[in-house]
Amino acid sequence: MTDKQVPDVVVGRLPLYLRTLKQLQTEGRRVISSAQLAKLLHLNPAQIRKDLSMFGEFGRQGVGYTIPDLIAQLERILHVDRTWEMIVVGAGALGQALVNYPGFEINGFRIAAIYDNDPAKIGKPIGRFIVRDVQYMPEDVRSHGWRIGILAVPEAAAQAVAEQMVSAGIRAILCYAPTVLTLPGNVQVQYIDPIVHLQHMAFYLEETD
Amino acid sequence: MTDKQVPDVVVGRLPLYLRTLKQLQTEGRRVISSAQLAKLLHLNPAQIRKDLSMFGEFGRQGVGYTIPDLIAQLERILHVDRTWEMIVVGAGALGQALVNYPGFEINGFRIAAIYDNDPAKIGKPIGRFIVRDVQYMPEDVRSHGWRIGILAVPEAAAQAVAEQMVSAGIRAILCYAPTVLTLPGNVQVQYIDPIVHLQHMAFYLEETD
Repeated sequence: MTDKQVPDVVVGRLPLYLRTLKQLQTEGRRVISSAQLAKLLHLNPAQIRKDLSMFGEFGRQGVGYTIPDLIAQLERILHVDRTWEMIVVGAGALGQALVNYPGFEINGFRIAAIYDNDPAKIGKPIGRFIVRDVQYMPEDVRSHGWRIGILAVPEAAAQAVAEQMVSAGIRAILCYAPTVLTLPGNVQVQYIDPIVHLQHMAFYLEETD
Repeated sequence: MTDKQVPDVVVGRLPLYLRTLKQLQTEGRRVISSAQLAKLLHLNPAQIRKDLSMFGEFGRQGVGYTIPDLIAQLERILHVDRTWEMIVVGAGALGQALVNYPGFEINGFRIAAIYDNDPAKIGKPIGRFIVRDVQYMPEDVRSHGWRIGILAVPEAAAQAVAEQMVSAGIRAILCYAPTVLTLPGNVQVQYIDPIVHLQHMAFYLEETD
C-alpha cells in the first residue's frame, strides 16, 4: 500500500507509537505486544495492529513487536530516519523556548536558524543562534533547500509570514499563532494552541467542580 | 441534550469555532453562515451545523449565525464564560514563555502561580510572578481550589508531578512533557508535543521534496 492511501488519522497516530516505543527502549525493553502498547497509549490493541498492518508485517503472533525493529520501521515510514533542518520565525519567549528544547534533534529535526523583524532582537544571541533579520529568511530557505518552518510570531503577522515562508519553499509549517492559515494545498500545516486544549478540558470541568 | 451525550470529538471542535468567531468579531463582522465559517476552518458546513445543533438552535435559515450571540453560547457551553485560575509547574524556558503568553486571559484562563524544584529558580521573578518551591504546590492548590495545571517539567519528572497535582485537586492537566500520563479517569489530560506534529508532517514531505 502506498503512502497516499493511508488515512491521515492513521498517520497522526504513528508518532505517538514511535514516542512510546522510544520511551520503552530507554527503559531497556526489547519486545512489546499490541495489548501492552495499547494500554500505555490508552488505545485499542486492534486499532494499533490495524494501523501498523497498513505498512507491512512487523509483529509476530504470540510474541509481539521487537521494539528496535519497529522503531526503525516507523522512523522510515515517517521519513525521520534522517534529520530535517527547520527554521523558526519569531524570537520572542516562545522562540527562545523552542531553541532551547532538547527534543528536536533526537527525533529527526534540527533548528537551523531563527528570525525576527524586531531591530531589538536581530543580532542578539539565543541559545546557539544569532537572531537573523527575517528579510534574509526567503533567501536562506532557498539556498539551503529547507522545507520545515516553525511559526512563532503574533497572530496578526502569521498569515503574511507563512506566505513568505511558502514562497521561499517551505512545505510544512508548525503554527503556534492562534489562527487558521490559508495556504496552498501542497503545504502541510499543523497547529499548536494551548487555548484549544484548555477550553476542551474546561467543558468537562464544571461537572466535577 | 446533556453534555455527557456529546462525542468528545465534537467538544474538541468547539474551541476552534470559538477562536475563529472571536477573530471575525475583532474584524467587525456580525453575522456568518455555516458555509463561510466552514471555509475559514477548512471543514464541512454540514459538520458545523450538526455540531452546533447538539447544543441548541443558534442560527437562522438563510441568515446564519449572529457572531456575538454564538460566541456567548460557545463560551457558556465550554464553561469559559468565567475565568479559570491555573498553575504552571516548571519554570524553564517553556514555563517562562507560558507566563508571558497574552492569550490566556482573553480566553477564560489566568495563570495564578508558577512552581519549580530547582533552588536556582525558586524565588526568582518571571513575568509578574515569583517562582515558588513546588513543595508548596499541593497546599496552594487545595487552599485556592485550583482545578487546572500546566505541566512544563522534563519528561522524567512528569508522571510524579502529575500525580501530586491530582492528589491536591487538579482535574485538568495540559502536558507539555513528551510522554503519556497514567492518571485516574476523572482527570482530563491533553498533550502538546511539537515532535508529534512535525513527524506527522514529515510523512508527507519526502514526496514533494
